[in-house]
Amino acid sequence: MTQSSTTVPVRPAPRPGPADARPVIPAGDGVRRGLGLGEVRLTGGFWGDLQDTNARATLSHCLDWMARLGWLANFDRVAAGTTGPERPGWEFSDSEVYKLLEAMAWELARTDDPALADRYTALVDRVAAAQDDDGYLNTCFGHPGRPDRYTDLSGGHELYCVGHLLQAAVARLRTAGEDLLVRVARRAADHVCREFGPDGRQAICGHPEIEVGLAEFGRALGEPRYTEQARLFVERRGHGTLPPRPLLGPGYFQDDQPVRETEAWHGHAVRALYLAAGAADVAVDTGDEDLLDAVRRQWRHTVERRTYLTGGMGSRHQDEGFGDDWELPADRAYCETCAGIGSTMVSWRLYLATGDVRYADLMERTFFNVLATSPRGDGRAFFYANPLQQRVAGQDVLPDAENPRAEGGVRAPWFDVSCCPTNVARTLASWHAYAASVDGDRFTVLQYAAGEWDVRLDGGGRLAVRVSTRYPDDGAVRVEVLAAPERAVTVRLRVPEWAGNGVGDGAAATLTGVDGVTRTVAPGWAQCTAEFRPGDTVVLRLPTAPRLTWPDPRIDAVRGCVAVERGPLVLCLESPDLPSGIALDQVRLDPAVPPRAEGDGALVRVRTVGARVESFPYTPVPARPATGEEIDVRLTPYHRWAERGPSTMRVFLPVT
Amino acid sequence: MTQSSTTVPVRPAPRPGPADARPVIPAGDGVRRGLGLGEVRLTGGFWGDLQDTNARATLSHCLDWMARLGWLANFDRVAAGTTGPERPGWEFSDSEVYKLLEAMAWELARTDDPALADRYTALVDRVAAAQDDDGYLNTCFGHPGRPDRYTDLSGGHELYCVGHLLQAAVARLRTAGEDLLVRVARRAADHVCREFGPDGRQAICGHPEIEVGLAEFGRALGEPRYTEQARLFVERRGHGTLPPRPLLGPGYFQDDQPVRETEAWHGHAVRALYLAAGAADVAVDTGDEDLLDAVRRQWRHTVERRTYLTGGMGSRHQDEGFGDDWELPADRAYCETCAGIGSTMVSWRLYLATGDVRYADLMERTFFNVLATSPRGDGRAFFYANPLQQRVAGQDVLPDAENPRAEGGVRAPWFDVSCCPTNVARTLASWHAYAASVDGDRFTVLQYAAGEWDVRLDGGGRLAVRVSTRYPDDGAVRVEVLAAPERAVTVRLRVPEWAGNGVGDGAAATLTGVDGVTRTVAPGWAQCTAEFRPGDTVVLRLPTAPRLTWPDPRIDAVRGCVAVERGPLVLCLESPDLPSGIALDQVRLDPAVPPRAEGDGALVRVRTVGARVESFPYTPVPARPATGEEIDVRLTPYHRWAERGPSTMRVFLPVT
Repeated sequence: MTQSSTTVPVRPAPRPGPADARPVIPAGDGVRRGLGLGEVRLTGGFWGDLQDTNARATLSHCLDWMARLGWLANFDRVAAGTTGPERPGWEFSDSEVYKLLEAMAWELARTDDPALADRYTALVDRVAAAQDDDGYLNTCFGHPGRPDRYTDLSGGHELYCVGHLLQAAVARLRTAGEDLLVRVARRAADHVCREFGPDGRQAICGHPEIEVGLAEFGRALGEPRYTEQARLFVERRGHGTLPPRPLLGPGYFQDDQPVRETEAWHGHAVRALYLAAGAADVAVDTGDEDLLDAVRRQWRHTVERRTYLTGGMGSRHQDEGFGDDWELPADRAYCETCAGIGSTMVSWRLYLATGDVRYADLMERTFFNVLATSPRGDGRAFFYANPLQQRVAGQDVLPDAENPRAEGGVRAPWFDVSCCPTNVARTLASWHAYAASVDGDRFTVLQYAAGEWDVRLDGGGRLAVRVSTRYPDDGAVRVEVLAAPERAVTVRLRVPEWAGNGVGDGAAATLTGVDGVTRTVAPGWAQCTAEFRPGDTVVLRLPTAPRLTWPDPRIDAVRGCVAVERGPLVLCLESPDLPSGIALDQVRLDPAVPPRAEGDGALVRVRTVGARVESFPYTPVPARPATGEEIDVRLTPYHRWAERGPSTMRVFLPVT
Repeated sequence: MTQSSTTVPVRPAPRPGPADARPVIPAGDGVRRGLGLGEVRLTGGFWGDLQDTNARATLSHCLDWMARLGWLANFDRVAAGTTGPERPGWEFSDSEVYKLLEAMAWELARTDDPALADRYTALVDRVAAAQDDDGYLNTCFGHPGRPDRYTDLSGGHELYCVGHLLQAAVARLRTAGEDLLVRVARRAADHVCREFGPDGRQAICGHPEIEVGLAEFGRALGEPRYTEQARLFVERRGHGTLPPRPLLGPGYFQDDQPVRETEAWHGHAVRALYLAAGAADVAVDTGDEDLLDAVRRQWRHTVERRTYLTGGMGSRHQDEGFGDDWELPADRAYCETCAGIGSTMVSWRLYLATGDVRYADLMERTFFNVLATSPRGDGRAFFYANPLQQRVAGQDVLPDAENPRAEGGVRAPWFDVSCCPTNVARTLASWHAYAASVDGDRFTVLQYAAGEWDVRLDGGGRLAVRVSTRYPDDGAVRVEVLAAPERAVTVRLRVPEWAGNGVGDGAAATLTGVDGVTRTVAPGWAQCTAEFRPGDTVVLRLPTAPRLTWPDPRIDAVRGCVAVERGPLVLCLESPDLPSGIALDQVRLDPAVPPRAEGDGALVRVRTVGARVESFPYTPVPARPATGEEIDVRLTPYHRWAERGPSTMRVFLPVT
């Protein structure tokens, strides 16, 4: 296809600076801003290592799989005019290519690897060649032998794919400036605005994503038409206009009630969360307090009643969706990796809009226990679903076999519906953008990781710090000032909710200021304002003794159970850590014996119960108490479960 | 379509007698036989009333809905050659017509209603007119504008539909003798044997049913080719030959492992159970002990670890399927009505084959708590799913609105996938066929209902009895002999497992013989052998005080909870029975206070807990014990829940 010459002219985007490389920049850049990737460099540690594995293994792993399955060649067939009834991949496979491009763009900003740059350029060329003259870009619809454009808005994912294209273009625009991908995205966005604008089709896409894509692309280009189109899509949703899909009501794609009237997230979790992220963007950029309040209310309701201990969201496999309030089964927890990522997308936007520490708290929980759980240590296999209990050990997955959804307790190299690997890749590649913020002369560390920050303060001048920490293995976070302006500025550190009173051994969180004075700090913020000099140090110490965590009794699925956490990590008991001859369902934790730290996990005291043999599992006699021997068993971080081969696993353990 | 003249000639079926009207007659008629509908007449009571409602309301309700939705006209379009791309109903809608015909046939044997006979005849005429010359009969495939025959064996349900046609023909053949429906069925069966026989397509249907249909039709006609074809279908399954369906593995339709190697039922529950029923038929008729043992083993494993207190089976909505062992969530229990019916189909066959009382025990549990739960009191709305907990009250269903699946806690007049109403109809119409059996000179009452039995004993002569009982409201069952041969014969009565030691107030089951002596009887069988005279009476008294029932602790979903049963009935707490201001999730049952009988339910002592308000539902502090006021609340029979409008409901209640 030749490229269109009918693109609406817009002013050239400015060349990006170090502070510009950010996924989310609200109009006017808000009261507080996240840091650009050019202002941060992680130096190993938990998140630095994950980023390195992502760069070294995951990006090429995803590219290779998509090449092998023909998802890339779909673009070539459109360009060559050789499309037909047969086409590999789901309707949304284009979006995986765009998410990979986004990941590559962020990663290039981090490492500027020339081999990666070549792969990026080659991939963009293939995508660009498939764009129609009028900006339409999709390999599943609209070409010979394929269904016509927009004939399946409920299931076709055409606008969803464009949304991901726009997010990829945002990453490129803010890290390297305008290039072919950005131009392709601009034509695609213009096409969407023409086709679905105020005078166009009064329709929406079954899977939200175009909203958040348009909103951010509009921000990145200073193009109010895109923001307005995002707003139109948000407002159009909830009026039951999407054609129904078999056995799924309109709530599945949030078309049952307008966003601003919705009380809790419901239906397909990823759809609900991407929509909320887009709605938050529209609300902020248009000053729509009512809409922002709606998203905040939905976040609050959902976190209070529909969220797992891991931060995972979505408790139904049937529709990959939220359940009712308190419907949080451990074994059938869906907790799709992409829903976890969607949750952090929403929380980040709400944090930037409000500054409320709770949003950053949830992001930490989700980062450590959902995002970090998905990829295998080598970055070449992933969880799609993240249950909190595995009753039956999964089966080993062949390294070259596609897996339906990686729900079976074993990470799989690739899935039939393979949305998670590229989503993990783009999120890890840009993770450090979510780790701190600045407002005025205040620099706030939100997520703890070893690294160096060199921040342009809004009040002028630079603040450079080195953060040293072994977090989450150790709760000490040392912030050393490397450079600071000659005036009083503030370094603020997040004290997680879990670090409040009652943690494990009773130790409290403390902050040691530049004056060397140590004081106890409560959950929320701890800060130090000073005219810093190079070498000045602030130390936050978070209590990371293992601690018991009890569920609300309305969560029926884990009644009579307790979990153990350590710092930001949810721990779990996995079958390889049990003495032989003891099954996971025979174990009862003794809550009277405090858990003790052991390696990166904990030791807990348990008793065993004998296995019952009944011909019908409902009897007139209550179950006997646990009278078996007392033993200590080791709990390990949930995010690393199933790394030692297929296993059974529980986060919540019944108590004695 | 003209009717074929190429039917393979078979010997004419004999005219049926009163003892012939039975759904299941194994080859050689086995050691024990169920009673023909001509040998039994229910006189009101629980099951008699349900049968009357079924006859008075449900049959015409189903017919009207299928007429209105165009499922009947599908046959007319085939006959007229006017089929096209548009066709109302799912692929399997023909089977609903056949299940209704089966229900009509059984009902005609019960009441001989001339208006019903006219409706039956008219419906058969429409079906017959749609049969192709070669015996193929399907309105979804194989005609102009429709997909070709057998092009979607995984999802097309063509053989499934024929299976139901054959079951309908069996009902007719054994109650009225050969008629047009039987001839249509014979041509359809012959077509299937030609097409899928040893030299035909080596294939199976994605939804088992043809097996059980062919096996019984072969029995009814004395046609071993049909039995052999059923055997071929059973043996072919489990070798992964069915083309996969999106996101569903081969276990979904039991094509992952051969039936004789399967340990537990798994995958789609109705499919698994229909297959097991067919396999049991084949095993019995071919003397295949290994296959029969496999089905018995699957029954045992599934009942021990994958069955709800109600007898319901299937714990996953995603694939309408069984879960792993002990995966039995109350709120997301699927317990499809049709799976309950499939379970009784299997249990009945295994009872006839083995005489084991446990099969009849499970049938009672499932009859009262699944089958009887589905239809609304007026017989014009039905549950599809039968969960044991309803967290959020459903929404009233409009009387003329189709409902996706009636999962929302409200019975619906009709569903998009509407397999349950006609399944309930055919099962209720023939329910009395499962209530007793005879072997030699022994008459066994399996299910308790008021009625009259006039039984041809295998040893010659008749035994006629009147059963008087208000069961399940009262546990007394009085069996009065009306006529008996002049020799010693045995009347045997089932003592349910639930009537064993430990019931409620400690009362034991007793049997009072013709000699007036009362003795305690243990679960299993209680019997009386005598040379009975008219007026002789045997009385079984089952203890129906309400009793606590505790779940196996491996069922995580109901840990710390207890249920209350009364006789064969599972009870539940429903929101209309709570004092205002108290929510269902605030109630804790005090197990130290024995439940007391109250109406058809029970009174239990509960305490309330205050509602917690937390910003995150996982905290360092355990939930406080229930300290609210002590009150007595009423539990009602589960089978009548949601009859008073939308409600919340629990079977298992947390204890104080």
